[in-house]
This record gives sequence, C-alpha cells and structure tokens, in this order.
Amino acid sequence: MQKHADFAEFTELVPTAAIRTERHGWRAKCLQRLIRLDLPVPQTVALPTETVRAIAAGQMPDTAGIAAIFGPDFLVSVRSSPEKPEWGGPGTVLNVGMNDAVHAQLIESHGKEAADALYLRFVQIYAVNVARLDPDMFHDDPGPKALETALALYRAETDEPFPQSPARQLAEVLRSMARAWEGTTARLLRQAKGAPAEAPLGLVIQRMALGIGPGLSGSGEIQFVDSVTGLPRITGRFRGQSQGRKASEETLYLVHDPRGASLEEADPALFARLVEYGARCREHLREEMQIEFTIESGAPMLIDAVRVRRSGRAAVRIAVTLAEEGIISREDALLRVEPRALTELLHYQVDPRGAQDLLARGIAASPGAATGRIVFTASDAQASAARDEPCILVRRETVPEDVRGMHAAVAVLTERGGMTSHAAVIARGLGLPCIVGCADLAVNPRDRTVTAPDGRIFREGDVFTVDGTNGTVLAGAAEMLEPALDDGFRTLLRWADNVRDIGIRANADTPDDARTARMFEAEGIGLARTEHMFFDDDRLTLMREMIFADTPNDRRIALERLLPMQRADFTALFEIMAGLPVCIRLFDPPLHEFLPHDREGMRELAEALDRPLSEVTRRCEALREFNPMLGMRGVRLGVTVPEIYDMQARAIFEAAVEAGRRGAPIVPEVMIPLVSAAREVEIVKTRIDAVASAVRTEMKAEFTWRLGVMVETPRAALRAGEIAHHAHFLSFGTNDLTQMTYGLSRDDAGRFMSTYVKQGVYAEDPFHILDVEGVGELLLIGASRGRAARRDVTISVCGEHGGNPESIAFCRAAGFDYVSCSPFRVPVARLAAAHFAILAPKPKKRS
Amino acid sequence: MQKHADFAEFTELVPTAAIRTERHGWRAKCLQRLIRLDLPVPQTVALPTETVRAIAAGQMPDTAGIAAIFGPDFLVSVRSSPEKPEWGGPGTVLNVGMNDAVHAQLIESHGKEAADALYLRFVQIYAVNVARLDPDMFHDDPGPKALETALALYRAETDEPFPQSPARQLAEVLRSMARAWEGTTARLLRQAKGAPAEAPLGLVIQRMALGIGPGLSGSGEIQFVDSVTGLPRITGRFRGQSQGRKASEETLYLVHDPRGASLEEADPALFARLVEYGARCREHLREEMQIEFTIESGAPMLIDAVRVRRSGRAAVRIAVTLAEEGIISREDALLRVEPRALTELLHYQVDPRGAQDLLARGIAASPGAATGRIVFTASDAQASAARDEPCILVRRETVPEDVRGMHAAVAVLTERGGMTSHAAVIARGLGLPCIVGCADLAVNPRDRTVTAPDGRIFREGDVFTVDGTNGTVLAGAAEMLEPALDDGFRTLLRWADNVRDIGIRANADTPDDARTARMFEAEGIGLARTEHMFFDDDRLTLMREMIFADTPNDRRIALERLLPMQRADFTALFEIMAGLPVCIRLFDPPLHEFLPHDREGMRELAEALDRPLSEVTRRCEALREFNPMLGMRGVRLGVTVPEIYDMQARAIFEAAVEAGRRGAPIVPEVMIPLVSAAREVEIVKTRIDAVASAVRTEMKAEFTWRLGVMVETPRAALRAGEIAHHAHFLSFGTNDLTQMTYGLSRDDAGRFMSTYVKQGVYAEDPFHILDVEGVGELLLIGASRGRAARRDVTISVCGEHGGNPESIAFCRAAGFDYVSCSPFRVPVARLAAAHFAILAPKPKKRS
Repeated sequence: MQKHADFAEFTELVPTAAIRTERHGWRAKCLQRLIRLDLPVPQTVALPTETVRAIAAGQMPDTAGIAAIFGPDFLVSVRSSPEKPEWGGPGTVLNVGMNDAVHAQLIESHGKEAADALYLRFVQIYAVNVARLDPDMFHDDPGPKALETALALYRAETDEPFPQSPARQLAEVLRSMARAWEGTTARLLRQAKGAPAEAPLGLVIQRMALGIGPGLSGSGEIQFVDSVTGLPRITGRFRGQSQGRKASEETLYLVHDPRGASLEEADPALFARLVEYGARCREHLREEMQIEFTIESGAPMLIDAVRVRRSGRAAVRIAVTLAEEGIISREDALLRVEPRALTELLHYQVDPRGAQDLLARGIAASPGAATGRIVFTASDAQASAARDEPCILVRRETVPEDVRGMHAAVAVLTERGGMTSHAAVIARGLGLPCIVGCADLAVNPRDRTVTAPDGRIFREGDVFTVDGTNGTVLAGAAEMLEPALDDGFRTLLRWADNVRDIGIRANADTPDDARTARMFEAEGIGLARTEHMFFDDDRLTLMREMIFADTPNDRRIALERLLPMQRADFTALFEIMAGLPVCIRLFDPPLHEFLPHDREGMRELAEALDRPLSEVTRRCEALREFNPMLGMRGVRLGVTVPEIYDMQARAIFEAAVEAGRRGAPIVPEVMIPLVSAAREVEIVKTRIDAVASAVRTEMKAEFTWRLGVMVETPRAALRAGEIAHHAHFLSFGTNDLTQMTYGLSRDDAGRFMSTYVKQGVYAEDPFHILDVEGVGELLLIGASRGRAARRDVTISVCGEHGGNPESIAFCRAAGFDYVSCSPFRVPVARLAAAHFAILAPKPKKRS
Repeated sequence: MQKHADFAEFTELVPTAAIRTERHGWRAKCLQRLIRLDLPVPQTVALPTETVRAIAAGQMPDTAGIAAIFGPDFLVSVRSSPEKPEWGGPGTVLNVGMNDAVHAQLIESHGKEAADALYLRFVQIYAVNVARLDPDMFHDDPGPKALETALALYRAETDEPFPQSPARQLAEVLRSMARAWEGTTARLLRQAKGAPAEAPLGLVIQRMALGIGPGLSGSGEIQFVDSVTGLPRITGRFRGQSQGRKASEETLYLVHDPRGASLEEADPALFARLVEYGARCREHLREEMQIEFTIESGAPMLIDAVRVRRSGRAAVRIAVTLAEEGIISREDALLRVEPRALTELLHYQVDPRGAQDLLARGIAASPGAATGRIVFTASDAQASAARDEPCILVRRETVPEDVRGMHAAVAVLTERGGMTSHAAVIARGLGLPCIVGCADLAVNPRDRTVTAPDGRIFREGDVFTVDGTNGTVLAGAAEMLEPALDDGFRTLLRWADNVRDIGIRANADTPDDARTARMFEAEGIGLARTEHMFFDDDRLTLMREMIFADTPNDRRIALERLLPMQRADFTALFEIMAGLPVCIRLFDPPLHEFLPHDREGMRELAEALDRPLSEVTRRCEALREFNPMLGMRGVRLGVTVPEIYDMQARAIFEAAVEAGRRGAPIVPEVMIPLVSAAREVEIVKTRIDAVASAVRTEMKAEFTWRLGVMVETPRAALRAGEIAHHAHFLSFGTNDLTQMTYGLSRDDAGRFMSTYVKQGVYAEDPFHILDVEGVGELLLIGASRGRAARRDVTISVCGEHGGNPESIAFCRAAGFDYVSCSPFRVPVARLAAAHFAILAPKPKKRS
C-alpha cells in the first residue's frame, strides 16, 4: 500500500493530527478531541478504516511503526472505532504486549497476584479471540495456579508456547479484530442498528494505563447526569487496584455516601479535577459524556469517553438543558431526541429498579403501564370503574362491544391478536396500556381465570401489572415511574412547533380524547369517528330501533331521539377544541355491527323492540355480510339511508352554533367515508347543504362549514380530481386504503403477517409502516390530482399511519397539509416533523 | 329563412334530388333510393331537419309551396324521418287534407262507409295530436254516426269547426310533429336508443295512396325472409280495401295457403311484380327490406320500406347470405350482426309463438331456456341427473357446495341475488340457463315448495321452464327453438377471426367447459380455476384431511392422495385443448370454504376424521375470517402452506408430459392468484422450478412452462413492473380488482347496486361493465409498467368482464394480447373484436 500524508497506515493522536470520524471512527475522533482539550489521555494511535480493511485482507500491520511510538516492549489496548458508537464492533483487548518478561517486572513492581491477574486475562482473551480456542477451557478459573494452567493449555492446544513478541501479539490482535468485523454476525448486528453492511471499521491503539500501583490507584467511570431522569447527579463507580483484582474489592463510591467510603472523600482534589474534566468535555464535546478513567498513584488519566446512556425522559432533559445553557442550538437539541423515545414520557412506566414477578411476555401494543384487578367482561370492567377500583380487562380478543369496557379499564390484555388487532388499535387510540398476542397466558373467560406458563392460576380480582411499553405481564403491583410531561418536554415540543412545516392533528372520538389532544397541543381534530358514540347502552337501543324501522318516517323518529345525544357529543368536542378545526367523519360501519350476534342477544332485542324473535332473527340475518369491510357502509349508507347523515349533519351544525354562542367558535369539517365515485359526494353534499340552510334559518345563526372526503378506496385516489371539485379537503384513510390496495383485511392478516415479514415477502407490516411503493403511490396520485383540480384543497392523512415518522416524512415530501394520529402519538409526530424540517429544509414537492 | 339549392325548405323526391340521410333522415333517403330504382312510389316531398326545427320554433311551413306540388286539394300522409330508424319519432299521420268536400267526393267514388272511416280516422288523430284534446273522447266509437259525433265534439271543445283548409291542416300537423320531437319523453326515448338528445328530425310528406276502390285494392306489407330463421320465405299481410275498412275484412294471405285466398293466387302478375320489386330493393339497398305497399285497382305502389326485423339467428343468416351472394362485403356482414345477439343462437330458446304459462319474472342471469322438474337441493339434483330426469335447481341463493348440483341441473332459479351472485356467475360459466333475484317466487326449501305470486304452490317434481334469456319462469314445458350453431354461424365467426386483432380465450374449469371452449373455437384456456375440482365428495374429504393435518408431513400425505386426481383433471383439459395454451390458476379460495358451516356438518366431519367434535369445531372456528375476500387465500396460502402449490405444480407438469406422450403437446401456463408483492412471485417461482426439475428427472421428459401472475389487487397493478421481472404473463382478474378498487364486495353489493345505478351514482354496475375510469386506469398502469419491464410479457384480462364488447374495445385499444371469458361468451367476443378491428383498424396503443 502506497503511503502518503492522508493515507498513513496509522496516525498518532496529537493535537495537530487530522482525524476524521468517517475515516478513523467515532472513538478516534472523540479521543482526539479530548487530547485537543489538553486532557490527560494515554498515548494513542488511530488506524484508519482502509488500514483495517487491508489487515483483514491479509496485509501485515506496520507493528514496527507502532513500536517506534510506544517503544519495543509496549503494553497497549486495542479498541474498535466504527463511524457511529451504536454500530458496535469487536470488544476491547487490553494488555497487548504482556509476556513473561513484563510479567516478571510486574511481580516486582505490583506483586504476584496483580501481575498474574493481568497476564491471565490477556492469555484468556488471546486464546479465545485470536487463537480461536474453545472458550470453555479458558473459563475464569481462580486460584494461584490459574496462569500456569492457562499457558500450559495454550501450548497443548496450539503446539506452540504463548507468543512473547509484543509485535506479533499486536499483529494477531489487529487481524482478529479486523476479521471479526467482516463476519456475518457482526454484519447482521450492525445492519440492525442502521449501519450499511459494508460499513468500515477503524481501530484505536492506546498505551495501557494499568490502574494499579501504590497509593490511590484503580479505574472507573463517571457521569454527571442521571441516566433515568437526565437531572444533574454524579454517578459511576471506582474500583481501586482494579485491573488486577476482583471488582468487589476496594470499590469506592464516587461521591459521599453513608454506605461507605467515596473517591470524593478519599482525594477531594483529584475528584475535583475529574469533575472539571467532565465539565470541559461537556462544554466542548457538546454532550453529556460518561468518562472512563484510571488513576495511577493519584494521577488520573482519561481512557475513553462515551455519550451517557439515557432514558427517553433523560434525553429530553439533557437536550433542553444543553440548549438552554447555549452549549448546543435548539435545532441540535431537537435532533438529539429520537421521536419514538417520547412515547415513554407520556405514560406511567414500571420502574426498572423495582422487584418484578414476571408472568409472561406478549406484543407491546400500546405503551404505558398500569396496575389493577383483572376482569373478564366489559360490564365487569364498568362495574369495577363504578366502584373506583382500577381494573385490567382480560380477553381472548376484543370486539366492538368491548370498547365501553376498555374505556373503564386501566389496561387491556388479550391472548390473541397483533399490532393491528381491534384491542391494539382502540387501546392506542385511548392511550391505554395494552398487551396483545400474549399466547403464553391461557385465558378462560368462562371460569374467569388466567393460567400462567408456570401453572399458577389467577382469578378475577387478582392484581396484575401490565407493561404495554415492553409487553410484560407482572403478577401483583409493580413500582411505577410517573409520566414526565414536564417543562423540558413542553419546551422541546414548542421548539419543534417553531420549525416544523406540516400540521399535526389528533384522531379523537370522545371528550377524553379531545382533552388529551389539547394537552398534547394538537392543532385540531383530524378524525372524529362518530360511530363509537352509538355503543352506549341507551343509544344502542335507539340505533337498533332505527335499523329496524319499517319506513323512512319511523327511521326519522328514532334518529330524532338520537339527535340531542349526538349534538351533545359534538358540543363537548367543539368546546374542548375551541378555536381549532374539528373534522367529523359521518357514520361509517355496517349497520349489522349494532345488532346482536347470538341467540340470546336476539331474544333480548326482540323483547326490547316488541317484535317476534323470528323477524328479528331474519332481519339480523339479512343484514349480515360476506365481507363487511367491502359492504354496505360509509357513504353507501349515506346515499341509500340518507336520514342518518341528515341527523348527523344537523347535530354538527346545531352544536357548532351552540358552541359558538358559548364562546367556542368553530368551523366544523364534515367528512364522508368510503367514497368511490364523485357523484356520491355530490349527492351527500346537496342534502347536507339543505340541512345547513335549515339550521341557519331555525337557529337564526350564520356559520360556515367545510366538506371533505375520506380517500380510502383506490378508486377515490384515482378519481381525486373529480372528487375535489366537490370537497374542501381530502383526507387519506390509510388503514382502509392499505387493506384495499393489498386486498388484505387487517383483521385477517394476523394469520400470516409475521411469516410474511420474516420471509421478507413484505418488507414491513403495511398496517404498521406505510407502504410507500403501493399505497404511497395512490396517495401521491390522489394528492396531485386533487390539487390540480382545486388548488386550495387541503390534503392530509388520518389513518393509523399518521403518527409514524416514516409517514410524516412521506406526507411532508408530498406537500400534505397535515397528518392526524392518535392523541398519544401527537408529541412523537410534532418532534418527528421538526426533525424532517431541520434535515431537509426545502422539501422538493413530489405531487 | 334564406332559400338556396342546398337549403331548400323542402325537396321533392325525384331521381336527381340530393337527399342526405343526416339532413333528411333515413326514411327520405330510403324513399329516394326506391325512386331512383324506378319503383312506383307516390309523389313525395322531404322536409330537411333545419326546416322541421324552424317549424318547431314557430316558423310557418311553406304550405303554398307544397300545394304547388300536390295541387291545392291535396291528400297526403306525414311521416317522421330521423337519422336512424331506431330513433323513433312521432307517429305517421294519414289523410291530411281530408275535409267535408273530399269526404263528399269519396262518398261518391267509394261509398259512405269508406269515406266516413277515412275522415273519422283523420279527425281523431288531428283532435288528439294537433288540437291536444282528451283522447278518451275520441275513442274509436263505431256506428253510422261516429263521424258526426267526432266533428261535433271537436267544435264543442275548440269553439271552432274542424279546419277545412288542407294547407292549415298540414301546417298544424307539421308543427305538432316537429314539437313532439322536442318533448322530454321523445328525447328520453331516443337517448335510450343511443341517439343524441339534440338529434334532429326530418319529415316526409307523401301523396296518399288510398288502397280503396274498385278491383283489387288494399294495403299490406311483404318481406322475403323469415324474421325468426332468416331463411327465404315470403311473409306479410294484405288487407283489401284496407284504408277504410276493418282490418279483419278482406284479408288475403300473400302466398298460397290452405287456410284461405292469397294475393299470389288472386293476381299472379301483380304478385310477381311485388316480388320483383323486393328483389330490386334487396340488391340495391343491400339489405332485406320489409316493403309497405298499396294496391289501387290492381296497380301497386310502394309507400315505404324498412329493414326486416330479425332475431339474432335471422340476423346471422341474412348477413352471411348477402355476403355470400356478393351483395355486401364480409366486413359489412360482420358489422350487421350485433355481437350480443349471438347469445341467443347458442342456447335453446322458448319459441315466442307457443303458449306460455308465465309464473314470475326475475333477473335474466344466464341465457338459454330449459324445462325440467324442480328440485331444492344439490343432492336431489344429482339424484335426478342419475335417473336421467332433467331437473331445475331451485334455491334461495346458491353456495359453493351447490356447484355439483348445478352441474347436474338443466337450469338454476334463485329467489335472491343479482347479475354477479354466485349462482349467476357459475351458471354463466357452465352455460346453464339461470334466473336470479326472482323475488316474486317464495322458495321454501324446508317444505320443498315454491309459491307463485298468484298463490299457486308448486312442489318438488313439478315441471318448470326457465328462460334465462329474458328472465321468465313458466309453469310446465314450453315449446322450444334449438340452438343455431349452423353453417351461417360458423362462417360468420370464421370471417370475424380473419379480421380481429386481439386473442380470445375461454375460462374453463372442467372437461365440459373445455369442450365448449373448443366448440366455440376459443384460442386456449385463459383461466382454469383449480378449486372447483375439490368439491366432489371424495376429494372434499381429502381436502379436509389436508386442512386438518397436524404437520407438514401429514399435509403432504393427504396432498399425495389428491395428486392423481388433480393430474387426471389436468390431463383431460390438456387433451381436449391439445395444441392450445391452457392457463391454470393455482389454488385460490380460503381453506374455510371447504369446511362445514353448521353443527351437523362438523359432527360428520369429526366422525370422518376420527377427531373430537370440540377440536373440529375449534379449528373450523379458528379458520373463519372477518373478510374472506381479503384474507388468507391465493398466494398467501401458497407462501405459508407451500405444499398445496407443490402438489398442483407436480400434477400440472406430470399431466403435461402425459398428454404430450398421448399426442397433445402443451406448454402449461401456471398462474399465481392474489399477488400483492413481487417477492411472493419469486418465492412461488423458486418452488415450482424445483418441482419442474424433479418431474423432468423422474419422468425423463423435457417440457417448458410459463409462469404468470393474476393481477387482481391494486398493488399488483401498481407494481406490475417489478412483478413482470418474474412472470411471462400478467392476466388481470377484473372481478377482484373491481372489488378492491371500489372497496366493494360483489357478494354484498346487491343490497344497494340497483339504487346506485338508478341514481346515477355509478353509471353502470362495475361488476357488469368494466369501470374504465378507475379499474381501467389500473389496467393501463399495470400493462404499461409490465411491458416496460419485460417487452414480451403477455397481457390479458380473465375476469367476468373479459367477454363484454366494451371491455374488449378497451383491452384492444390498450394493446392487450387476449381476453378470456366464459366459453358461452366466446362467440360474442370473437364478433365484437372483429367489429372493433373493422371500425378502428389501426389501434393507437395506449400502453
């Protein structure tokens, strides 16, 4: 290999050295910075990626050159230095250069026990990682003869004595690390962390600082913020004489602690220097760092420094504090917090430090943790809520009738289902902790028991803790961490709002949802589903009367009784969202969802309606559908049974007038579901216009409203141009659109989705991550045709995908006006949108 | 209005007159031709469309000019002359110019009775059509005083005497006819016949030929071919002294008839002249004409001539004969037969001339007529077939289990369902007469009775005739016409094949289907569904064993027993189709379709499988789906339970080798259903390739095969480029594609489709007529992307739409290679394709 300035085989880290992260890796770069800050770092050499690659390919490392720096009898460590810390890399090898001669010197200077321990550790790691001997043979086998045994084993297995040349040792260690990086496992691991498979590796060779010797000697780590809270607090550990002794011996606390001696007290001046080093790092590296240090006879050395590991809440606190102190910009602060990490801040969490009685793991379907007594039916959940007893609803799987029980529960646990099962979707909407697909638990709804894999049987009323963030079910009550919607959180999101350039609304059906949406500062409601409003007992009866009405007039009478209830629903939403837009989707589900499915339910219904059972059965039967998803629902009901939409429109307009009079002026948005032809929109629009006129006259009030179409059939996307002529806004319902584009029902996909994703048939579950290639193209077609027909048409996404960062990036690039998502995903969406605005400030519109 | 040569207010029809159909209408043009042929046509004047329009707008007709031609005391008829005969127009008004003076003359020359009758008829028609008096008052009230009464009534109602001026009468008649043409009813009627709403009208004024007088006088029509068969035969009628007497009097047969006197015998020379006139018309008008004539004292006059009305079979015979005689070209012959008219030739028909006991009307779902005893279950149908007794399967609606019963029946009748219900689709596929949605009949499957609207109750074994061509259910056996797959039919379709430029294949699942496909000269099988093959009793049991298999190995064992049956199925298809391509779609439906749905069925299944009922119930339950259409079917089964496709592929390849050895060489085409991602195709292809290699080795035979994808999800259309990399052909399954594009299940659409089409929400039922705007765009996208990725990829449509002329036009314009349709639609498709090739000979490829 030809050598010239920029392609040196290695570079010593001196303040003037040119070290680049993409060539030498993050660790080399970080150490170089510490050196520039004049911090006491042991002599260090960086091997750039091309050198490491050449070594992996068989080239002999330039150990002579290295020996010229460290001296012929060097004792060094070798650490990996990939471009990003999270990409991993082969583990550190300490004490390279250790041999009989050094061992003998160390016995003299530090005693046999310390010398043996250092040598033994190196022999072990060399035997396993370099000579590829069986790790079982080189287990840490304590005892005075351990070193001799290891050396003898090495000789027996390799037919040669343990190599004594430091140069040879180093060459072999470098080669083994370079090759390990090219192995399949390492590739897969780093790809999982987002690295390219062919990502290169740098290596760092550093003179060993032994941390042993007379006086205060040892090694440790120190950090200056709490990893869980992000608040200032010094934590870490210090092990005296540590390199050669067991960790438990001579351990000091870092700061004063009633439980024992501390470094702070043992050498206040040295401790102060460490703290000063920390402050210098923080300011110049512009990050909270965890510092690895050694002390040799009272003299500290900084061996390494890494970003402090941190929880979501700590990440927010650290980023905001650094920005408020002027160390980083607000934009940097925003970029330092991973949007999805915000989720854990919004919910109670099981405190990882407490005791946990783990029962089973399922799919973490909706984040947060809650403790409550287990119940097995929706009505038991309601009864429990009425007694103010927190309960957890446990079901095999949930159905629409369970929604009221979910409202009453503090968490939901189901034996079956996936990320997009009914329970999961509703729970995420409600911000309710939820675990689904917990197949390890056998739920027996008849006996009202749950059997754990260890055979324990739990009964109704027993206490569980459900941790929907990580999918664990615990017996009993676990210790909890509170949600962290603190100043830091609010400050960060306000900064996000200042930079982002796509709107974020919330999907919200109930006043509770709406309050959550406001709490998380959504810019309005992007989807208020109205059908959930009809599952309350009293309304359900009226709905059923409406469904069984023999004439349009009977139907109108039943609907007139539903009207004040709907109006109250909307008034509540409008008052909570005062001043913000509220988009109400007209009635969508097939009518049979409101009818009983079993004989007993039909008997009760027959009684309630005072009709013969045979008639009730026959009519329930007649409404049943082969493919309800593709049946008589949405605007098809609106066109064929127009009285329902008439009632809803009236309720919306009357509520808007009422709310306006009470000081909550609102421009209601009315959205038509399941449109497949422009004429459907025209027909519904004509009727709603008439209702609006009537309400204006009757209430002597002026108001405006906006009509929109939920684009959720492929045809609506294709015909968006025509449709936009009749609509102020188009909102893509990506759930249904995904179902129809794939020909795949969300409810039935669970049977094979995991197989499909595992085999790479689908790159991702398209109900979880927006399918950019198929569904996404329909979004682009729909948006561009809609805009071409009507320049000012508002375009948005209101499906489950709305809150995903990937979807936000897509919608923003396509020039959408806003996305709408579950209230609990609003913070994530606000931050993700800010990230994209910072990282790609001038979106090239694709529409 | 300015007058010059081309814009004369009227033109007398003399041989040199310039008469154009688009200006003067078809009737003027036709009469002008007769005049040029030197045929005796009474003096005639044509009013062009602009004159008629001006009259409708209020301009006075130039009656003076007309009187200058016909003389001041003219007696004329006025007939409408739109551009095409089928566009209708106001009815003919005879005897314009009739008044007291003419009446008096006629009394002298022809007697009072004849004179009164002529005058009365004119007064009646004038009062109703021109003066707009109540028709009830002017009912045909026979009696010697009828004329006086009518004239008195006229005066009483209008306060003026009946107008005596021929000029005024003519002016009023022309104005009333011109205005009637502009009326809403007339517009709607002609639009229904395909005319533009603003189509103009011409009028024809002709001197009356009275058909009364001494000697042989009268009027009649004559035609020279049979309207039902198209074969040469003189038919028509002649009424002596007809204009003034009742039709029944003095009626002559045209040709010798044992039942009475004939015109032929009454005046052979005159009759021969008529026949000669007919031959002249036929040759020069290049069409079989029906001629209206009068005879006054032995002198014949031709009043009018129209195209002979004809059945489908007559149309074919006439067109072929005219072409064979060199009167018209073969292309003209093709264009003269409406493709859909061929349908009736393929089936038995109820003879319209026989007696009929009409019970009810339903939706004519599959053409043809059949007579048989009614049965109510599939097994009764099979039993009946075993006894060789033709039976009609009567069901509320059919389910897949009924298919074997449909195979055994001669016709199917269901109370429910629409054009795209299960019964309708399967029956069309089988070419079985079928009526669905016959809601007037109450079918009681338990009692095995059918109750007719008139209260009659029919029981199992009673005889019905089902006419699936027009949707009528008749009690008892009706007289039948046989199918007409005669020389004419074959000749016409061979001519069609010579000009058409898009391939036509048939969808065929069974040997019977395949034989029909061959009989109708399909160019191969475009879709052989394999799942129907598993509904036979013995196979169903094996299928169920396969579904209930606990391990892949058990599954393979069950499949191995199915293998020889499948192989036999395919061998039969290949041998019948020898030399032509056969495209086999791999297994498509969800597995639960093969499981029983009721408790009794499950009990039997538990017994058959020797498993506990609870297990059978549980597993049937577990396989049930919310939206089967969007569930675990098609390639999703192929990927997750690959043993099924392995078995099918093996059966196909082994059959291909076997058939080849028996002299029926074939390149099997294997089609994967319900694809939504290219990777699905890759995975299945890899496995099938392996099966092909294994079969080649085991059978020591070489063969090639083609892999294709059924494009029936919107996503597959969008991703057709990627998919085409792995596929030799793409075939659009427009049924499913329509379902998914609209988000509309064919099985559930019946509830509102008629409302939707009536209200114009959808222009047409998209399951019936291809939705060009939505689904069609996906076809174009898929085809162009597929071609761009692989130039030689074969593109086709194999959904129900394939046989529709509209779809054929679309596919041809888009450059598709072929369409595939039910065997019984193949002739229609062949002819329709020929039409498009003639009418638009150089398709501009849209792909």
